[in-house]
Amino acid sequence: MTQGGTNLPRVGGYNQAVILDAIRTAGQVSRVELAPLTGLTSQTVSNVVRRLLAAGLITESGHAPSSGGKRRTLLSPRADGAFAVGVQLDPDAAVIVVVDLSGEVLASRRVRLTDLGDPARVVARVAAAARRLTARTRVDPARLLGTGIATPGPIDGTAGEVVLPPNFPGWGRVPLLEMFGAATGMPVAMDNDATVAAIGERWIGGRARAGSFLFIYLGTGIGAGIVLNNTVLHGDSSNAGEFGHMTVEPGDRTCHCGGTNCLGPYVSPAAVLADLTARHGRSAAERIGLAGTDEAVHADWKVLCRAARRGEPAARDVIRTAAARIGQAARGAVALLDVDRVVLGGEALRGIEAIMCEEVDAAVNTTSVARAIRRVSVERSVIGEAVGAVGAASLILHGRYAPGWRMLTQPSP
Amino acid sequence: MTQGGTNLPRVGGYNQAVILDAIRTAGQVSRVELAPLTGLTSQTVSNVVRRLLAAGLITESGHAPSSGGKRRTLLSPRADGAFAVGVQLDPDAAVIVVVDLSGEVLASRRVRLTDLGDPARVVARVAAAARRLTARTRVDPARLLGTGIATPGPIDGTAGEVVLPPNFPGWGRVPLLEMFGAATGMPVAMDNDATVAAIGERWIGGRARAGSFLFIYLGTGIGAGIVLNNTVLHGDSSNAGEFGHMTVEPGDRTCHCGGTNCLGPYVSPAAVLADLTARHGRSAAERIGLAGTDEAVHADWKVLCRAARRGEPAARDVIRTAAARIGQAARGAVALLDVDRVVLGGEALRGIEAIMCEEVDAAVNTTSVARAIRRVSVERSVIGEAVGAVGAASLILHGRYAPGWRMLTQPSP
Repeated sequence: MTQGGTNLPRVGGYNQAVILDAIRTAGQVSRVELAPLTGLTSQTVSNVVRRLLAAGLITESGHAPSSGGKRRTLLSPRADGAFAVGVQLDPDAAVIVVVDLSGEVLASRRVRLTDLGDPARVVARVAAAARRLTARTRVDPARLLGTGIATPGPIDGTAGEVVLPPNFPGWGRVPLLEMFGAATGMPVAMDNDATVAAIGERWIGGRARAGSFLFIYLGTGIGAGIVLNNTVLHGDSSNAGEFGHMTVEPGDRTCHCGGTNCLGPYVSPAAVLADLTARHGRSAAERIGLAGTDEAVHADWKVLCRAARRGEPAARDVIRTAAARIGQAARGAVALLDVDRVVLGGEALRGIEAIMCEEVDAAVNTTSVARAIRRVSVERSVIGEAVGAVGAASLILHGRYAPGWRMLTQPSP
Repeated sequence: MTQGGTNLPRVGGYNQAVILDAIRTAGQVSRVELAPLTGLTSQTVSNVVRRLLAAGLITESGHAPSSGGKRRTLLSPRADGAFAVGVQLDPDAAVIVVVDLSGEVLASRRVRLTDLGDPARVVARVAAAARRLTARTRVDPARLLGTGIATPGPIDGTAGEVVLPPNFPGWGRVPLLEMFGAATGMPVAMDNDATVAAIGERWIGGRARAGSFLFIYLGTGIGAGIVLNNTVLHGDSSNAGEFGHMTVEPGDRTCHCGGTNCLGPYVSPAAVLADLTARHGRSAAERIGLAGTDEAVHADWKVLCRAARRGEPAARDVIRTAAARIGQAARGAVALLDVDRVVLGGEALRGIEAIMCEEVDAAVNTTSVARAIRRVSVERSVIGEAVGAVGAASLILHGRYAPGWRMLTQPSP
């Protein structure tokens, strides 16, 4: 339970990750520059760079302009050094991507999930589609590190299970990690969708996502991912960033936990669509062109967001109301964590990025810390709509290559 | 901005901290047991133990019962290995303590602050009192490491300044770190009161405070301290744990940030005392024996808490209402951070620990994660009322001896 010690082999692995991270963040950098960037000696930098070149993770990519003496060789990451598969599992569909070490998407596919009541069939279907997609990309199988799964929470991280996920009715405890491992024959990692999205931003975002940030993820539900000092917060039970139970001004909605002041029930696409009819009548829904059925939530949400973007007043009103509640929760989270950046992303954000960023920005910048000491920057995902699936693939790459505390020490028994 | 690397000297310092931490946590432990506890080799353990003995930080404290072979020598921390001064600065008074390495209070004093408008006089007064108190304890000056200051936020950690603290009217940017350094002639560290209290719990609480927890601090204002995986969260601007801007159900109070749904304005002693008169009339205030003036807030709060403890209905009502709002904020914070323990403490908690724990416990254990995966334990401070001042002293001891990420690596420029 207390902190574990460290030793030389761990230090070697850690410093290798530090140097790879510095090269990835810089894009192109010389050995000489790496020493001050990492705080390591030139001798250590040379040795590690040799190992990274041999492993095919970086390449010599040219020379810096001469500054009098010998021209410095520049190092860059090799995109084809490693690959990973990412799966974003949502009640509506699974999005599958194959990405390279740089985070670029080589191939992607959306698989509609129909037989949602049977987790085994869902896994079989998704694994088969992932296999076909990977074959099509012709990546070197020896460099394909594994499959990352982004799933709605809650999850039991130790057991690798999702546990009674509210968005997958009928699912109890489902051992997704083991099931995907068996179905893909590859190493598998799993985390909740918002945390995975934050890992993707950290992995791919370079300098723009160094340090600390709160990632707010809008999908079927709402969630958050937390990065503090370049380290992803997983939490005691692997459920850090559960955002739906943040307290907001109460209305007439009841959360599955019994509360009337939980954020979750007020800001899901289904909830905001219901608000539209409740506040502006059926006529507004018809005018905007909403089907209004439970099955059409996914499609209706897109229609509603497009209407809001072109300025339709009723659509803007309900989306702004939801955005203000998200802002209330974000204000508390930012004050608690003291992060200077909030990133918004997820499939359900499409078309309403501007309204969301505006409301969240206003809310998080009211506190005394924000006004007297530092503003909080509110930004859109650098990855965009596929942040869940790309983040899931990053889970594998980040877990293997990002310099983390766990590489150096492990908690003692 | 990316992660820095590590090297052998850093590893040596870190492993020494790990072993001291393991000995402190265990209380008494043999060299043989330390290897599996820390994940270090017996050779490393032997070398580090020799250094810790020579530094006077631990002692050989007896022998384990024989289990056949040679009896094992047991190691214990030396309470007199190091000392620190702690100062808790509140608008009402400063509490000063001298503590030893084990966290035991050797001497303490409360200094009423009268000329609050003049920070220089406050510092001079407190520093003089600290000097007299330290002289009285006759601790070895060579082992007195410094003075820790717990101050209401917000603070500018980089500059060592408090910045427009709402509870110190008239204070702008006050460079407390520099002022106390000059006045005491000792190394000084400073952090906000709730974070400092959490550090104290972590430093002194042993196994009971290993891992992760959220500390909720009730003083003149409300604040939180956050410990994640044995590491204190300071935040990007050293203001992590600002709890007063967590959103709660709105009422008729306006926060200095303009919000009507910020926790802070509803749960300070002054606010709860005002609630009593508003909800139960002047007669209730008189019956309980409250003076009802601005100057008497500190004394009235104690009277109100005593009344609540003996079951006075109006007193219980307003305190339970405040506790429920704290519970709302705690639920969101616990879900966000995914910690399995909440600790309540601070001077203003005296007498109402039971009501507070009950309401917070009910609130944080409603979420799906709490119900399906793990309960959240809600506990009182192991240090008690002086947690702010003792925590301030721990800031010095913890900063010097606790094994932390910063010992191993430093962020690159």
